[in-house]
Amino acid sequence: MAVYTEVSDEALAGFLAEYDIGKLIAFRGIAEGVENSNYALRTEAGDFILTLYEKRVVPADLPWFLGLMEHLAERGIPCPLPVHGRDGQALRVLCGRQAAITTFLPGVWPRRVRLAHCAPLGAALAALHLAGRDYAPERVNALGPASWASLFAHAAGDADRIRPGLRAELEAALHGILEAWPEDLPRGQIHADLFPDNVFFLDGKLSGLIDFYFAATELLAYDLAICLNAWCFEPDYSFNVTKARALLGAYDAARPLLQAERAALPVLCQGAALRFVLTRLFDWINTPSGALVTRKDPLDYVRRLRFNLAAKDAGAYGF
Amino acid sequence: MAVYTEVSDEALAGFLAEYDIGKLIAFRGIAEGVENSNYALRTEAGDFILTLYEKRVVPADLPWFLGLMEHLAERGIPCPLPVHGRDGQALRVLCGRQAAITTFLPGVWPRRVRLAHCAPLGAALAALHLAGRDYAPERVNALGPASWASLFAHAAGDADRIRPGLRAELEAALHGILEAWPEDLPRGQIHADLFPDNVFFLDGKLSGLIDFYFAATELLAYDLAICLNAWCFEPDYSFNVTKARALLGAYDAARPLLQAERAALPVLCQGAALRFVLTRLFDWINTPSGALVTRKDPLDYVRRLRFNLAAKDAGAYGF
Repeated sequence: MAVYTEVSDEALAGFLAEYDIGKLIAFRGIAEGVENSNYALRTEAGDFILTLYEKRVVPADLPWFLGLMEHLAERGIPCPLPVHGRDGQALRVLCGRQAAITTFLPGVWPRRVRLAHCAPLGAALAALHLAGRDYAPERVNALGPASWASLFAHAAGDADRIRPGLRAELEAALHGILEAWPEDLPRGQIHADLFPDNVFFLDGKLSGLIDFYFAATELLAYDLAICLNAWCFEPDYSFNVTKARALLGAYDAARPLLQAERAALPVLCQGAALRFVLTRLFDWINTPSGALVTRKDPLDYVRRLRFNLAAKDAGAYGF
Repeated sequence: MAVYTEVSDEALAGFLAEYDIGKLIAFRGIAEGVENSNYALRTEAGDFILTLYEKRVVPADLPWFLGLMEHLAERGIPCPLPVHGRDGQALRVLCGRQAAITTFLPGVWPRRVRLAHCAPLGAALAALHLAGRDYAPERVNALGPASWASLFAHAAGDADRIRPGLRAELEAALHGILEAWPEDLPRGQIHADLFPDNVFFLDGKLSGLIDFYFAATELLAYDLAICLNAWCFEPDYSFNVTKARALLGAYDAARPLLQAERAALPVLCQGAALRFVLTRLFDWINTPSGALVTRKDPLDYVRRLRFNLAAKDAGAYGF
């Protein structure tokens, strides 16, 4: 739920005057999104999203994110297209925050993942990776494997307060994963946060991919691992291998996975689970009670981590 | 910030099938509104708001609220018009909650009140009161003067924890206000919660009045008192008599105030301030820390209460 920065009508009017999108018709805060302030904006030119970037986004990264979205949108990926102002800029300051206007995407994110969502997701992820190949600038994944030991060190002291034994369990997993982490797989631009609430569907078709503010230059198959964890576990934490097969099959049909990528799936999925355990643990410990942000339970991802630690090979994912 | 109930895509599809408004195009949670879950809904027929009524709204009151909105909208008041389903009903159940679809209103609510907003507000409030005259069913104001002693009793024990001396200050005010409360002023349907975030403006004109879920049958001038408190104090709690004069003047031009209503303005404004002190105090004490609701500071309205207690007559409001 996210509107952290209130925008006055005068400030909004001044901001919109920098664009060629006609007069303001409506402006409402959007509840979705936990990192930034998002507003649904309607002008005479149509519907847009206005985003104010809050503290978790590093301002210096914004041109990279917006450039990637523009690059992908121009290549047919259904992602928000940054709107340029009269001065050519897509990024400017509003209420003391960096801010941008992007196009509105139709569709609804699936509150409950069904099998029918998984193949379109896999195909869209492969298309995103292919379309990103000629986006040259790179962004280090600030939440990639190199960050996990430090994240663990910050959160470890409190892990056992959440569940006794969690600290030792995570420490063992961290060491094993980093030791086995593959380095020589194909790299490129990944979304890195493609959870169901970032994917819209309309009439059974995938209609939008949003929220590129964790995107980075990383192992492509790691993005697939993030999706396997986010889309293929049932609410009781059982793993739905039919969903996984649909996701992987559709991805592989568009961008065939190398043998080394297939073989690395278990450790990639372990790492992808650990990354969300660690950041959720960090947020759990550091979110003041009374804050407006919903804390996500780190244990949801500990359950996923355990499944992936027990996986012997790509066969565990139906592949 | 409010989306308390998540609506699955299957539940939404089933719900929309009861209406004649075409296929779903988009569906986003809206951050505004603290009592209910609100979604921006787009279908082939246009834009709508889907509201799920949460626990604070008594289900038995909903037909009255929706009936009032329909009555007012038909008489030209720019308020949401409930959309009827194929079965003729405007109210049905979705995800275990009573729910309704209403029309979308253009405009933006003023984050900072300017003088130019006050006359249109006064005129719209008078028009609402006039248009409500032939809406026959009555609703007792559950947060009217008869409720204040009981609200005070629930909150009094903790008042001094918020500010030492607050309990005695509120008790004295409560007794004085109830003793002086006028009973024989014109009554009718009032909005009872017309704060700036419930009023939209577009191109300098008032374009929408929303959130009728505190509406009740009550002294009409009490609604004006609620608006004086909500619109005419500056952020430093100084009273802007020019704004008050604009609000009262525009109201009076459309529905001339009786001499008794003018004379009662101080006590009506005192009561209107006390009502929000008491409910905010109650929420402050009873909101668990970590809840997603923003608690509003009761002391904001204590400051308004003091100004109104010092007001000798309507002259204090520029009238």
